[in-house]
Amino acid sequence: MKVRVNGRARNYRTVSFDARRNEVVLIEQRKLPHAFELTRTKTFQQTARAITNMTVRGAGAIGATAAYGLAQGARAFTGKTDAAFERHVQRVYETLEAARPTAVDLVNAMTDVLAAMAAGKTIAQKQKLALRAAEKFADDDVAHCEAIGKHGAKLIKNGTRVLTHCNAGWLAFVDIGSATAPMYAAQAKGRSFHVFCDETRPRAQGAALTAWELAQQGIAHEVIADNAAGHLMQRGEIDLVITGSDRTLGRTGEVANKIGTYTKAVLAARHKIPFYVAIPFSTIDWDLRRGMEIPIEERDESEVLGAWGVDERGKFREVRVANPASGARNPAFDVTPANLITGIITPNGIFKPRDLWANRKRLGAV
Amino acid sequence: MKVRVNGRARNYRTVSFDARRNEVVLIEQRKLPHAFELTRTKTFQQTARAITNMTVRGAGAIGATAAYGLAQGARAFTGKTDAAFERHVQRVYETLEAARPTAVDLVNAMTDVLAAMAAGKTIAQKQKLALRAAEKFADDDVAHCEAIGKHGAKLIKNGTRVLTHCNAGWLAFVDIGSATAPMYAAQAKGRSFHVFCDETRPRAQGAALTAWELAQQGIAHEVIADNAAGHLMQRGEIDLVITGSDRTLGRTGEVANKIGTYTKAVLAARHKIPFYVAIPFSTIDWDLRRGMEIPIEERDESEVLGAWGVDERGKFREVRVANPASGARNPAFDVTPANLITGIITPNGIFKPRDLWANRKRLGAV
Repeated sequence: MKVRVNGRARNYRTVSFDARRNEVVLIEQRKLPHAFELTRTKTFQQTARAITNMTVRGAGAIGATAAYGLAQGARAFTGKTDAAFERHVQRVYETLEAARPTAVDLVNAMTDVLAAMAAGKTIAQKQKLALRAAEKFADDDVAHCEAIGKHGAKLIKNGTRVLTHCNAGWLAFVDIGSATAPMYAAQAKGRSFHVFCDETRPRAQGAALTAWELAQQGIAHEVIADNAAGHLMQRGEIDLVITGSDRTLGRTGEVANKIGTYTKAVLAARHKIPFYVAIPFSTIDWDLRRGMEIPIEERDESEVLGAWGVDERGKFREVRVANPASGARNPAFDVTPANLITGIITPNGIFKPRDLWANRKRLGAV
Repeated sequence: MKVRVNGRARNYRTVSFDARRNEVVLIEQRKLPHAFELTRTKTFQQTARAITNMTVRGAGAIGATAAYGLAQGARAFTGKTDAAFERHVQRVYETLEAARPTAVDLVNAMTDVLAAMAAGKTIAQKQKLALRAAEKFADDDVAHCEAIGKHGAKLIKNGTRVLTHCNAGWLAFVDIGSATAPMYAAQAKGRSFHVFCDETRPRAQGAALTAWELAQQGIAHEVIADNAAGHLMQRGEIDLVITGSDRTLGRTGEVANKIGTYTKAVLAARHKIPFYVAIPFSTIDWDLRRGMEIPIEERDESEVLGAWGVDERGKFREVRVANPASGARNPAFDVTPANLITGIITPNGIFKPRDLWANRKRLGAV
């Protein structure tokens, strides 16, 4: 999407690859909204670390980063034998796979890359195919998000008040975003509407990233505390909820997404407000049989005990908010059951969550 | 309650009065948990400001502060005529009443003081009676919280995992607290249990105040993001919810409390987890007929857009978390309907919310 930096607007992708230097190029998301910077990872280990420390985050974005990271690792191989190359690629895969446990895009993206590499006969061919597959994953992600926008735009009319949680925007994908795609598409059709951004503690991706995105694109919005959505729904001030997902089970329609999503779905159901989840195909897990089996990442307690931003002089700072002698629990994701979800917005249309499996061929299952 | 300051434990009340200097003495709650300080207000205007800026907050605490503030204002009168005194007292009352709109304790406490003053014949008598009534309000608040503890302790058994929202602890009252009273009473009976403290954005009273209180008293606890309670309930990790209230309607059993309480009640009902609200009599509004009529304070958007605490050197700082170009909505309270509430823990026992009215004589209605 277009970003205005120092008064000039330029198009950026969240994740891209510099093939000449064999580097992954990422928007440094931990500095947003206070600074817009690009950062480069020089090795697959650095790429894995950028996923873990949330330099890059979001379903599609970490999928593309992992795909590029796998290609980057494969291309950095300097040994000779096919067996050594296989072992090396396996190590790269496992390093990247361990970077974040809940999101399935990461695994799906690397599975694509490995499948493409299998067609190569020589190490050099496999390296070339790996990069081509990673580029294809990234381009497909953009195309899928565009298609999500096309299907989802009909949900947003003039005056619609949309709630979204966390950031499933273009920063969470290679471009355009999933939950934001219907908003950008509705805006392109000239509709005016209002978006409430859950701040999404503990990492505040809603306040920091979604609000930044919407401000950049000129879409009317307000940040709210995660606590406030129930009250606004009760007062009839929210018409529609759209979130993203880090893993959606194709067999059951259950949706793993940022902690707090389940709560919003429960509230929306109570208030009969439509609750949609927007996902590209790479977010669908066709294997797992139960939402309870989705690994839920528990992150460091410091995220809950503190907050970060810029001080009055614009300097980045982290502050300790909580009692210094107290600890915290920090589950990063939760699972929303299918019966709380009105529809899943995919690149091939909007489906009832329970209908994903019957439509698996249209939804990219292999 | 006992506070350890520089290694020495001493008993403090959240609010007290220095009659000689005609000053209200308050624990400065905006500096907790990072510093424990007392502050004094020299005039009723300063007292009102301390309520508005949340130097003191919480149902009973602002009730007692308003009662003392009214006595303080009455005692500062230097005119001669009864009519001038009446006008002065009216001005003091209105200044304090406007300090925070949602909590009813403030009005109920001042009503007590005004009623007591009416029995005085001279200005001097009225001034004396005002102070005596304010002291009585404060002492009653302590006694009520103790009685809440006695009735509520039976809900907390060995191993119970309790969720609480915001701070309805002793810092929210003159002492002991409402939601915390059953915890302190259960602890006194030797029971061991675990408390999850919702951090309670935007002002983080759970992370800052409740966690501090529980740590001071040696009760096992963890802070969680407001987003996490739904997930923990879903996984069977919460057995009981106890919150406070800023205004409970005696006619309907509806409960106004810190923003996010309604959400927790909806989640608890879904998971069949008992949801209790603990209140002294002064929190009951016997007049209003509908929860929708409760004025919901909208506070400054800066609370949602930022956070505050101490930096790595222990210096207080406020940071801007949200996108600088974005605004926020900041409703400070919400209303929970009676049918989501298992019981109201009062100084005279636990009642179904719909039964408050039938028992109004036992619940202090006049």
